[in-house]
Amino acid sequence: METLNQLGLNAKKASRKLAQASAQEKNQALLIMSQLIVEHQKDILTANQQDLAAAESNGIKGTMLDRLTLNEERVIAMAEGIKQVAGLPDPIGTVHSMRTLDNGLTIGRQSVPLGVIGIIYESRPNVTTDAGVLCFKSGNAVILRGGKEAIHTNKAIITILQKALSQTDFPQQSIQLVEDTSRASSTGLMTLTEYLDVLIPRGGAGLIKAVVENATVPVIETGVGNCHVYIDKDAQLEMAKDIIVNAKCSRPSVCNAAETLLIHEDVAAAFLPEIETALSEYNVELRADEKAGTILSKSIPATEEDWETEFLDYILAVKVVSDLEEAVEHIDRYSTGHSEAIVTDDYASSQQFLHEVDSAAVYINASTRFTDGFEFGFGAEIGISTQKIHARGPMGLPELTSYKTIVYGNGQIR
Amino acid sequence: METLNQLGLNAKKASRKLAQASAQEKNQALLIMSQLIVEHQKDILTANQQDLAAAESNGIKGTMLDRLTLNEERVIAMAEGIKQVAGLPDPIGTVHSMRTLDNGLTIGRQSVPLGVIGIIYESRPNVTTDAGVLCFKSGNAVILRGGKEAIHTNKAIITILQKALSQTDFPQQSIQLVEDTSRASSTGLMTLTEYLDVLIPRGGAGLIKAVVENATVPVIETGVGNCHVYIDKDAQLEMAKDIIVNAKCSRPSVCNAAETLLIHEDVAAAFLPEIETALSEYNVELRADEKAGTILSKSIPATEEDWETEFLDYILAVKVVSDLEEAVEHIDRYSTGHSEAIVTDDYASSQQFLHEVDSAAVYINASTRFTDGFEFGFGAEIGISTQKIHARGPMGLPELTSYKTIVYGNGQIR
Repeated sequence: METLNQLGLNAKKASRKLAQASAQEKNQALLIMSQLIVEHQKDILTANQQDLAAAESNGIKGTMLDRLTLNEERVIAMAEGIKQVAGLPDPIGTVHSMRTLDNGLTIGRQSVPLGVIGIIYESRPNVTTDAGVLCFKSGNAVILRGGKEAIHTNKAIITILQKALSQTDFPQQSIQLVEDTSRASSTGLMTLTEYLDVLIPRGGAGLIKAVVENATVPVIETGVGNCHVYIDKDAQLEMAKDIIVNAKCSRPSVCNAAETLLIHEDVAAAFLPEIETALSEYNVELRADEKAGTILSKSIPATEEDWETEFLDYILAVKVVSDLEEAVEHIDRYSTGHSEAIVTDDYASSQQFLHEVDSAAVYINASTRFTDGFEFGFGAEIGISTQKIHARGPMGLPELTSYKTIVYGNGQIR
Repeated sequence: METLNQLGLNAKKASRKLAQASAQEKNQALLIMSQLIVEHQKDILTANQQDLAAAESNGIKGTMLDRLTLNEERVIAMAEGIKQVAGLPDPIGTVHSMRTLDNGLTIGRQSVPLGVIGIIYESRPNVTTDAGVLCFKSGNAVILRGGKEAIHTNKAIITILQKALSQTDFPQQSIQLVEDTSRASSTGLMTLTEYLDVLIPRGGAGLIKAVVENATVPVIETGVGNCHVYIDKDAQLEMAKDIIVNAKCSRPSVCNAAETLLIHEDVAAAFLPEIETALSEYNVELRADEKAGTILSKSIPATEEDWETEFLDYILAVKVVSDLEEAVEHIDRYSTGHSEAIVTDDYASSQQFLHEVDSAAVYINASTRFTDGFEFGFGAEIGISTQKIHARGPMGLPELTSYKTIVYGNGQIR
C-alpha cells in the first residue's frame, strides 16, 4: 500500500527528531495539544455527530453507540488527560546499571524510544488522543488506525494535534492517522516491517486473533481478560461477597472484570446462596457446573464454551472445586492470563495461589478490577498486555521504551 | 504436526514444575548435567563422527565443518559452561518496585519465567547445551530445533541432559529436541501458538527472515550484524587503526565484527593508507566508494549491496563522509541496529554519535567486538537481540524472564 509506506516513511523520519527531543520540548507540545483540543472542541463534536448519524443509520446502539459518543465533558476530559501526560516523568534517557568493566570500558543501559509504534483500535475516539500522546511523550512516532465508525471524529482530532505540532519544532507526522479504514489498511499496517518497531492492537478477541495470525511486525497483545475469582475454604464470607460483586458488576464491559467464580466445596453450600442474592441485585445470570447448580436457586448449566468466554456482560460462570489445586488447574486451562484473585485467610493457600497462577496480575483478597495503569500508579496506560515478552499487564510510559547499551572507551580492543 | 504438539504439551507441563523450582534444585540438576556430559563424552563424540562423515560426503568443509566439529576439549568446555551457568545468580522470584498504594494494596513486580521457549538454530552443537541450560536455569521449558547437519550429535547431547533430569525431580521434558529436521518442523515450531511463549531464532539472515515472515508466536530476532566504525576528523590515528583492525579481523565470522568503515574526509587522505597497510596483513579486501577508492592503493568499487551486507569475512566496505551527520545517516540507512562505534577525541561528536545512532550497542573509542553477553558481564548469553521490544543487544538470564504483578490486599474493592 503506497499510502501506508508514505506514512511509515514520515513516521520514521519524525521518530529521529522525537528521540532527540528534551522532556521540556515534548511537554510544551503536549500542553499546546491540550489547549487546542479545548479551543477546537466544536470541530470534534461536529465530526462526532457525523459518525453518530452514520452509526445510527447502520443500526449501532447501546454500549457501542455510547463508546463512540463524545460530548463537551468528554472532550474536556481528553484535554485534561493530555495535560496529565505532560506532567508524568519522562521515560527517556535514564541510564541503568552503569558500571566500569575490568578492561576500563564504562557501560550502561540507556532508555530510548521504541521508534515507530502502530496502534490498531476500534470505536472509542478517546484512544486517538490517549495513545497518540503517550507515544509522543515516550519519544515515539505513532501511526493510528482507528475503526471506521469513528473516522470523522478521529480525523478532526488528528487535525488538531497536528496543528498543535505545527506550532512547535516537531514534525506534524509525529502523530498520524490511517484514513483508509478498509481491512487492507489494517493488514497493511500489520506487515509494515520496514517502518514499524511494534504494533499494539487494542480491541476484542477477533482483532487480537487477526493481528497474531497476520502480523510480521513485532506485536504486543493486549486486553482479552477471562478473569477468575477463587473463594478458598478459609475465606471470609463478607469479603468474598464484596470482591466477587465488585469484580463482576462494577463495570462488566472491561477486561479486568471477573468472568468465572471458583469456590471450594467446603464453603459452597454456605456461601453460594448469599453470593447469589448479592449478584441478583445486578441481575447477573449464573452459568453453573453440576455441583454449583444444585446449590444455586437459579442458574443455567455451564457449557465448555462458558469457561473460556470473556462475557463482558452481567453473566458469571460458577464452578465448585475440590481444592486449590483444582482451582489453579482450571485457571491454567481457561484463563487468558490477565488477572486472577484468591479470597482466603490461610497463609499457605495465599502463597501457593500467588506462585502457581501464571497471569499478569495475581491478587490475594482484592478485586481483579484494580488491574489498570492508573490504579497501579503509572499515571496512564496504553493497554494491558496479556503476553509475556516485553511487557505484561498494564503498560505505562516505561513500557513504550527500549534501551541501548552505551559504551565509553579509550581505545579498548578485544 | 502431531509430534510438535506433543512436544509442546510436554513442555507446557514441564514449565509449571520449572517455574516453582528453587535455585538450589535447578543448580543441582545443572551440575548433574555437567557431570554426565563429561562421563558420556564418548557417546557425543561418536555421534559427532556420524554427523561429520555425512557432512563431508555432502561437500561441507572449512568454517562450516569446523562449527560442526566436537572434540574432547570442546565437550569439556560444554560441561564447564553448564557448571558456570549453575553458578550464576538465579533470575527468578526477584520482586521489584514493591510499594503500598493509598488504598492499602501492596503491589510489586515479581520476575517469573517466560514459560516455554523455542530455539531454532543451525549447525553448532554447543548451542544445544548453551541454550538448553540457560532456559532451564531461568525456569523455562525449552524446545530445541537444531540443524540437520548436527542431528546425531544433538540427539546424543539431549539424551544425556534428559538422563541427568531423570535423576532429579524435574520432568525429562524440561529440555526437548525436535528430531524431525525437515522444513515443516521448523515452520511448525514458528506457529505453535498454543504452547510457545517465545521463539528465538539463532542463525543467518535467511533463517531470521523466514521466522519473521512465518511466525505467529512472539519472536525475538537475533544476530544479524552489519556493524560500522566511524573515524571522526578528531580521531587519533593509532587508536583508529587498532579499533578498525580489531573490529574487522579479530573474528570476522561473528555478528559483532565490523563490515563498513566510515571516515571523515578531513583525515581520509592521511589515515586510509596507514589503515590499508594494517588491514593488508590480514588480506582484507576493501570495497570502496569513489573518494576512498582514489586514496586507497588497492580496492574494488563498492556496490549498493555492499553497504547492506554482513560479509562475515575478510572484506570491508569503506566510505568517505563529509561529516558526522553523513555517517549517522549512512548507519541509519544500512545498519541492522547491532553495534556501531565512533573514534574521536571531540566531546560533542562523541555525545552526538552516542545519542543519534539507534543501535543495540553504541561505542565511543572501542571496538564493536565487545557486544557479547560474557564481555558485558552477564556470565552467559542466549543470543544478541537486534529488535527493540523485550530485549536489545546481548541477552543473558534476566532477558529470559517475564514478570507478574503480585497484589496483597485485605478486601479492597474498586
